[in-house]
Amino acid sequence: MKETHAIPGYTFGTSAIARSPVTPGDFELMKRSILFDDEDVKYLRLSRGIVADQVEAILDVWYGFVGSQPHLLASFSGRVDGKPLGNYLGAVRKRFGQWILDTAAAEYDQRWLDYQHEIGLRHHHAKKNRTDGATSTAVVPFRDLFPLIYPVTFTLRPFLASKGHAAGEVEKMYAAWLKSCLLQMTLWTYPYIRDGDF
Amino acid sequence: MKETHAIPGYTFGTSAIARSPVTPGDFELMKRSILFDDEDVKYLRLSRGIVADQVEAILDVWYGFVGSQPHLLASFSGRVDGKPLGNYLGAVRKRFGQWILDTAAAEYDQRWLDYQHEIGLRHHHAKKNRTDGATSTAVVPFRDLFPLIYPVTFTLRPFLASKGHAAGEVEKMYAAWLKSCLLQMTLWTYPYIRDGDF
Repeated sequence: MKETHAIPGYTFGTSAIARSPVTPGDFELMKRSILFDDEDVKYLRLSRGIVADQVEAILDVWYGFVGSQPHLLASFSGRVDGKPLGNYLGAVRKRFGQWILDTAAAEYDQRWLDYQHEIGLRHHHAKKNRTDGATSTAVVPFRDLFPLIYPVTFTLRPFLASKGHAAGEVEKMYAAWLKSCLLQMTLWTYPYIRDGDF
Repeated sequence: MKETHAIPGYTFGTSAIARSPVTPGDFELMKRSILFDDEDVKYLRLSRGIVADQVEAILDVWYGFVGSQPHLLASFSGRVDGKPLGNYLGAVRKRFGQWILDTAAAEYDQRWLDYQHEIGLRHHHAKKNRTDGATSTAVVPFRDLFPLIYPVTFTLRPFLASKGHAAGEVEKMYAAWLKSCLLQMTLWTYPYIRDGDF
């Protein structure tokens, strides 16, 4: 996690964040439900060296997609005037870039689990806008969260393939990313779920 | 939907089910979030002819996976003694087979939307066990629902490829299935989501 102290609001591993309500035991079972194993860790880490110098280009694609859809951009726009909030978009973008690297680092330990819960709170009524002092909408609607996994992973694929790896390796990196995103989004949506239903 | 009257509890399109709280307008936006379009409808319908005579073999794979994982099988087991409930597993299996055909038919209209909400209620505290008079656990935990999309779609792929279609066509059918499952699971989890967060 070196050299990340410069990213405002990136509190991974600090005392600013609370313990995740999801236990490591729960997370182990989630990994079994999705067939996530050491092979996925290996291919995520292989992807890190591929995406590390392409983070800004990847974010350009993702931000381009969100920016092209008014109902998605609304979560980064003013609550009152509906205009995109440049500072908010920029602040989130820095952490989003670090998220790419952290996902690919695949060090999914207690600190990581705790930070996933924090990310979830920041999408939810519980803490949205607070980290960046933004004046945007009160919640990122649940209905768009899991659907976004498709464009995010689909558009990542050409980047994973851009450095000459065999098609089979690219496919395994893509699958590991898809699984990781499904696991992470499940952790992120904990605050959205009624008591006792998670 | 012909010849489905023989499946107990399959109430698609009947007066037994309520209107979905998700409007067709909401669903249109969800489709945009996941890049689901006419091409996906086309490839889902192409897949229907491929999977139609392989439904039981597909269900064997999926049931084999769930049956191999105690924490997943628990949702089909006795609340008190923890033993798998054969009648419950069998009743759900008949509707699961029809779900394969309905997903591939891709007639995602109001009746379909209403039935997705009913499916969600049957996973949730709201209506679990009721359709089949089962004595199983009170809720399918949210944390396993989206992760299961990966094994379901991944293991479907060889079936999609089993009738000689070009690799590019198989890939497009797989992508359409993945998107459809993400959209459907989002609709199914409506009852799990806190008021105002969907």
